[in-house]
Amino acid sequence: MDSGTSTGAGENSGNENKSIIVVGAGLAGSLLAVYLAKRGYKVDVYERREDIRTAEIVEGRSINLALSTRGLTALEKAGMGHIGRQLGTPMYGRIIHAQEEDPKLQFQQYGVDPKQHLMSISRTVLNERLITAAEEYPLVKFHFKHRCLKTDFAKTSIQFLNEETGETVTATADVILGSDGAYSSVRAALQKTQYFNFSQYFLDHAYKELTLSPAADGSYQLPSNGLHIWPRENFMLIGLPNLDKSFTITLFMPVKMFESLQTKEDVRRFFSIYFPDALRLMPNVPDQYFANPTGSLVWIKCDPHHKDHVAILGDAAHAMVPFYGQGMNCCFEDVRVLDELLEKYNDDWDQVLPALTATRTKNTDAICQLSYRNYKEMSSHVSHADYLLRKKFDTMMNYFFPASWIPLYSMVTFSNIPYSEVIERSEWQDRVVGKIKTAAPVVALGAASLLALYFPRSRAFVRQALTNLADRL
Amino acid sequence: MDSGTSTGAGENSGNENKSIIVVGAGLAGSLLAVYLAKRGYKVDVYERREDIRTAEIVEGRSINLALSTRGLTALEKAGMGHIGRQLGTPMYGRIIHAQEEDPKLQFQQYGVDPKQHLMSISRTVLNERLITAAEEYPLVKFHFKHRCLKTDFAKTSIQFLNEETGETVTATADVILGSDGAYSSVRAALQKTQYFNFSQYFLDHAYKELTLSPAADGSYQLPSNGLHIWPRENFMLIGLPNLDKSFTITLFMPVKMFESLQTKEDVRRFFSIYFPDALRLMPNVPDQYFANPTGSLVWIKCDPHHKDHVAILGDAAHAMVPFYGQGMNCCFEDVRVLDELLEKYNDDWDQVLPALTATRTKNTDAICQLSYRNYKEMSSHVSHADYLLRKKFDTMMNYFFPASWIPLYSMVTFSNIPYSEVIERSEWQDRVVGKIKTAAPVVALGAASLLALYFPRSRAFVRQALTNLADRL
Repeated sequence: MDSGTSTGAGENSGNENKSIIVVGAGLAGSLLAVYLAKRGYKVDVYERREDIRTAEIVEGRSINLALSTRGLTALEKAGMGHIGRQLGTPMYGRIIHAQEEDPKLQFQQYGVDPKQHLMSISRTVLNERLITAAEEYPLVKFHFKHRCLKTDFAKTSIQFLNEETGETVTATADVILGSDGAYSSVRAALQKTQYFNFSQYFLDHAYKELTLSPAADGSYQLPSNGLHIWPRENFMLIGLPNLDKSFTITLFMPVKMFESLQTKEDVRRFFSIYFPDALRLMPNVPDQYFANPTGSLVWIKCDPHHKDHVAILGDAAHAMVPFYGQGMNCCFEDVRVLDELLEKYNDDWDQVLPALTATRTKNTDAICQLSYRNYKEMSSHVSHADYLLRKKFDTMMNYFFPASWIPLYSMVTFSNIPYSEVIERSEWQDRVVGKIKTAAPVVALGAASLLALYFPRSRAFVRQALTNLADRL
Repeated sequence: MDSGTSTGAGENSGNENKSIIVVGAGLAGSLLAVYLAKRGYKVDVYERREDIRTAEIVEGRSINLALSTRGLTALEKAGMGHIGRQLGTPMYGRIIHAQEEDPKLQFQQYGVDPKQHLMSISRTVLNERLITAAEEYPLVKFHFKHRCLKTDFAKTSIQFLNEETGETVTATADVILGSDGAYSSVRAALQKTQYFNFSQYFLDHAYKELTLSPAADGSYQLPSNGLHIWPRENFMLIGLPNLDKSFTITLFMPVKMFESLQTKEDVRRFFSIYFPDALRLMPNVPDQYFANPTGSLVWIKCDPHHKDHVAILGDAAHAMVPFYGQGMNCCFEDVRVLDELLEKYNDDWDQVLPALTATRTKNTDAICQLSYRNYKEMSSHVSHADYLLRKKFDTMMNYFFPASWIPLYSMVTFSNIPYSEVIERSEWQDRVVGKIKTAAPVVALGAASLLALYFPRSRAFVRQALTNLADRL
């Protein structure tokens, strides 16, 4: 086990009499339990579903996720970096599929350093490992099949329905943390209080997950070193490798397009036109299409993230669309930041929770925005010349100014720079690029004139260059 | 009773077997009951509170409202225009109070026609009259003290808790209409369904209502022919006349300012600095300040306004801040538009409800936006020279182009032009004004040059004029 950097198991002896209720044993909730137990809190985690480690069918949500720097940093700080590294398949770039029978795949490296990568990781396996890790602490107890009914802010208590026994139980603690997902019950209670700003916005695009099985010889059917994208302007297919050599393929497209595909023949025809190479590898797509559910994409934001001694973290506070692969990474960052605030304020929750709201609302708003904007980038821009040119330019600038010029994608994915600062820095870079674009023809013109003036023999070349420039303007 | 224009009592014989549940017996709900009964529907209105006509204390919400054209149009169409006209006090303009001991009041006419006016009307009295009017129809039944618990979209049924008996009752109907206010239970159920976009945003300003009693001789203490405003940039006091010769005075200011006034002496000092004339007329303000609650200001919007056979109207669908005096007017317009759609689609609710969403979401979004923007206008602009100049310009333009140039305020208040069209037209007018502002100096310069050229003796005058112009640029 890695060693935690700032917290050791049970080292924080001032908290042993303090109890915390965590609502939701998903990725954020189970990591939260580990962090809190390390600080010496007694932690009770209540989860609506049954224990996913013993469940026959695991409900809902996407199959695999892209773990990157922020997520890994939070795992490492809790001494669990190895989990992220062992369970994932590294993806070093995007692999673009043109709309052809047998496209030549185009690899676009993610980082400025070829070694930088995301890890494609199974949500369920990661979650199971985190629950098990949390359970190893005697201070942590999981209560499955408990549905949250009511939150009482004044008493810091919460009522659950034990769905196995039918009993209603009321639990009280020093602090309640709701990490109960995009449709959070704890947030629903907050929403009924005054001065709670909230919005939920559904995209008119939806998604459907499909499986690309391993080849007959048990190997991957596509290169496994990247995230596959079939960009088709207003819709796209993406593919992430799994450890079992399959790929999880996700179709993102407008709800209306999903509705327009009514028969298996419709689906087969649609794939044969837009994704012919994917159809060849997944001939059973028409069957999968109707067997698998269509998921909606929602963007939720709210402010504050707490009231009294109740706070929300993870998707409960900021569900985002998946186009930046930051959903889980941001949830894990929430937990790490909460831990840093506990450290800073000596576990004084009266200071910690307002500070959590102050820093997380602006940063999670920022990543929600970036994720929304990135749909266009993934589904369309990645195949445009302008985009590739800018990517080259960013790489060059980063080579000369490694600390101050980091491409937007790298700041989000391969750094722990606060998201709101990422937006500011990226807007500054865009302004610089804009100015260069405006200034470049003028500088070129001046240089050409000088050249023509002092080196008469270069005039033919200069004339040609100016003609080219004029054509471009 | 006025005669309804398109619907007569019980005339619509095709609907007699159809039943409708209305949730909420506020202004929108009780008017809705009248309209639906006129179309021949069996209507059950469920209301959480007790009957306000017999209640000793009526909970919550602002005391008086400004009824204007949209509200009156909807009342008239239901044959109840007389209610609006009898119960209100006409207000022909704004009456501005400068920050002085004994300010000279400045009257700013509302309309382009001096006869155009709003009616200051009591919420409670109006609501009582509407409930009584609805109850006159045998088809309408009110159920008070029924709290809405659960809405079932598939069954078009809804569960209530009878708070008198403690019984739970489930009511089923052909259609459920939720007019249960800003904190709507019906909307809360909608919010849990997919593809329901929703946001609630609290202003950092709040409000507190105060009463300015009649004079000792039973007369008004201030002129009653207008809406009084004490604009103080970031906060303000407004006053609306009541039939009993009192005024309802409302203080709007940042929550933090409310919190900073902690003692009666603080309040007295605050009023003596900013509202000295109001304090002289209301010496008991410090007592009232601590006796009366501070209300929050919320902006709620959502899309769609329906699902299956359940829809929401009024504040449930679009709570707005009160700065355009359009809350009630917009609610009443919802009801009138619903009636027009029922007429258009022959009471086919499968067509009516999607059409209601299509038209009302964009129009209610528009008035919510306008209301939000109008805070600056009321609390600040009304006392600025630029604003008064633009008002004069608009009046002049309207004189020449009465149909195409209507000031924004008049379109909102004295017309039934759809709110979204109001915004478009007002933006066009602003663009024209912008162009005139840009062009005016050029035109003036040209005219001055011609003048100087052809009439040498005018040169001194022209020189002076140009110097003045230069000073302004």
